[in-house]
Amino acid sequence: MTAKQNQQLDLYFHALADPARRSMIQRLTRGPASVSELGKPLQMSLPAVVQHVQVLESSGLIRSEKIGRVRMCRIDVRALKAAENWLIGRRTSIEKRGDTPA
Amino acid sequence: MTAKQNQQLDLYFHALADPARRSMIQRLTRGPASVSELGKPLQMSLPAVVQHVQVLESSGLIRSEKIGRVRMCRIDVRALKAAENWLIGRRTSIEKRGDTPA
Repeated sequence: MTAKQNQQLDLYFHALADPARRSMIQRLTRGPASVSELGKPLQMSLPAVVQHVQVLESSGLIRSEKIGRVRMCRIDVRALKAAENWLIGRRTSIEKRGDTPA
Repeated sequence: MTAKQNQQLDLYFHALADPARRSMIQRLTRGPASVSELGKPLQMSLPAVVQHVQVLESSGLIRSEKIGRVRMCRIDVRALKAAENWLIGRRTSIEKRGDTPA
């Protein structure tokens, strides 16, 4: 793993360590959504919603583009997969060792 | 997912969002290790190492027990798997939708 990939994991896991941001990721698994759609189920102000979206976007887990007056967001599946792969790699190392109780 | 499981994910992902803590997890995939062994490859003071171990332990990703004068740590594979499962669940939701570019 390169230093850059390792730094990227810091950002992914930090972004995932918040229930509001995970709820946004969850919503985006159903398809692209606007910032206000992402905020709808959350009991928070629009600025707070925007801030969470920015953390997700600067981590690389989501991308956004302005379509007319609306900012639409979507997941970057490769980023989700990179975080997943790190965890799978560690777990399979343990299982290969084979002496760890479940 | 229960509220408690959701809070647990906050702790897991927060614990994983640091390169020193991921290096400790990486080391523990090879088997149990003492706190000082976990700190050996890291350029940091023992109190800093202990603090990282405490974050990992209070998240539930590792457990420790005192054996004689040495505190030995090991991974809780179920915790690693719970974090992994959340990511896999989201990714497979996207893939089932089938309209997302790689």
